[in-house]
Amino acid sequence: MRLVIALGGNALLRRGEAMTADNQRDNVRVACQQIAKVAPGVELVIAHGNGPQVGLLALQGNAYDAANPYPLDVLGAETEGMIGYMIEQELGNLLPFEVPFATILTQVEVDGADPAFKHPSKPIGPVYSKEEAQRLAAEKGWSIAADGDKFRRVVASPRPQRIFEIRPIKWLLEKGSVVICAGGGGIPTMYDGQQLRGVEAVIDKDLCSALLAEQLAADLLVIATDVDAVYMDWGKPTQHSIAAAHPDALAKLGFAAGSMGPKVQAACEFARNTGNTAVIGSLENIEAIVQGHCGTRISLDCNCIVYR
Amino acid sequence: MRLVIALGGNALLRRGEAMTADNQRDNVRVACQQIAKVAPGVELVIAHGNGPQVGLLALQGNAYDAANPYPLDVLGAETEGMIGYMIEQELGNLLPFEVPFATILTQVEVDGADPAFKHPSKPIGPVYSKEEAQRLAAEKGWSIAADGDKFRRVVASPRPQRIFEIRPIKWLLEKGSVVICAGGGGIPTMYDGQQLRGVEAVIDKDLCSALLAEQLAADLLVIATDVDAVYMDWGKPTQHSIAAAHPDALAKLGFAAGSMGPKVQAACEFARNTGNTAVIGSLENIEAIVQGHCGTRISLDCNCIVYR
Repeated sequence: MRLVIALGGNALLRRGEAMTADNQRDNVRVACQQIAKVAPGVELVIAHGNGPQVGLLALQGNAYDAANPYPLDVLGAETEGMIGYMIEQELGNLLPFEVPFATILTQVEVDGADPAFKHPSKPIGPVYSKEEAQRLAAEKGWSIAADGDKFRRVVASPRPQRIFEIRPIKWLLEKGSVVICAGGGGIPTMYDGQQLRGVEAVIDKDLCSALLAEQLAADLLVIATDVDAVYMDWGKPTQHSIAAAHPDALAKLGFAAGSMGPKVQAACEFARNTGNTAVIGSLENIEAIVQGHCGTRISLDCNCIVYR
Repeated sequence: MRLVIALGGNALLRRGEAMTADNQRDNVRVACQQIAKVAPGVELVIAHGNGPQVGLLALQGNAYDAANPYPLDVLGAETEGMIGYMIEQELGNLLPFEVPFATILTQVEVDGADPAFKHPSKPIGPVYSKEEAQRLAAEKGWSIAADGDKFRRVVASPRPQRIFEIRPIKWLLEKGSVVICAGGGGIPTMYDGQQLRGVEAVIDKDLCSALLAEQLAADLLVIATDVDAVYMDWGKPTQHSIAAAHPDALAKLGFAAGSMGPKVQAACEFARNTGNTAVIGSLENIEAIVQGHCGTRISLDCNCIVYR
């Protein structure tokens, strides 16, 4: 079985936690303890988010030399190195020593005409109070948006169109290597037919993971998050956990753009384009998810919505 | 032909230049214009330094949150992402679109008993005046050392013992991918038989490149630097450019630990251990180096030292 797991940003750093190297490593270790349970005998690909990390690197650079900010593509590449390293080392420590690992830098093409460039929507970096966020927005030319009762910087999040390193990723999987790639949704780039260039954007890691899983013909895509399933009417008295759904039925329910929306969209696209199953659920349940018992299973085999 | 090129730090950032993303990218582009000349028809591996970059990241982190410094292994992983990205993109723009590329995060084992841990010697980060360096050393517990007429922070530089990702690197080369790896000499780690852990050190990138080239059975190792050859009596009236040398003869001459020493040592080790040729020379002459006409060629085939 070929399995793609997309790790949410909260698998790497819990909300409100200080962005120290130790905290991130501790969270990565906990995540890897779950992943290690399903790794034996599968072809395993791990993708991951980078929102807090790319924001932190931007802040660090700004604190040192505000006049020469590093662009988001370069910062994204740095986070692929940092997070990939932690995952590779921590998961490697839980699997037999012989298992080969490769963390692959991943460049992903986006379309310059993507409407996302006119509507920045992807939160990066830490949360701020409304007043502080407004001050920073004025000072630095940021776009900001609400995130729960706090505010964060938001940047454009264009759709991923092509993964340039897809062949090396495939080759390594075929050789039995665990592959860590498409970190942070991949480094956003544009190709004009002659030159590949980085872009000031952040690609949604779930949409990129879906594209990755599709191009790898994965049997299963698991989008790991901090809730155990997709819920209808989340937070309302009518709230229900969804056990399984046809992508068309699920897409009709409508989910928040900043949280469950991209996950549902990504899972639906994978299910539609491959005929295989995508699951949205908690990493703590990864064994049961792989066995078919947990999370929200999105598949063409389900002809409506099944609630728990 | 299987070719390993080790790019010096000055191929990425010239001495005294501001460490902006644009400056680094411009230098990477110039380096890649040279590399592109020899890429067609060879199995190509590119390793690179990261001294200025890892130092910059340490400074950025310090400026933002001095109480929670990121350790050197994590910073090294960040630089592998950043520099690997720039090389992959810039060289990719100069080669046919179909050529596959992979930048591989590289963890390298060092020995905890390595005497280098007692004698920090590897310069990282920017140059300082003597007074400023002494102040920083007192303030931050750094070790510092002279570098020309300036001073820099120095950290331990233990010998590389094992490259954990060597199998993926080989597999990708066999598939025709250009591979960028072992950035900054690899991420320094120790393995206790159970767990792999990062270490506060920087591995010499030339020694790591030699180990990499040896384990890949490379036909040629090119250690690219900013001089066109190794010189006897550099800077003296008796100065002579060395065209070719047996490793035993060259090693006897003695070279400065901070500059040509590790390059000569790395080239000699590769030549001795493989029977193949290592060349120390300028990236500007890469075509002539590969053709056998430039640089200092270190090989068992040469039974003494040949001067120009």
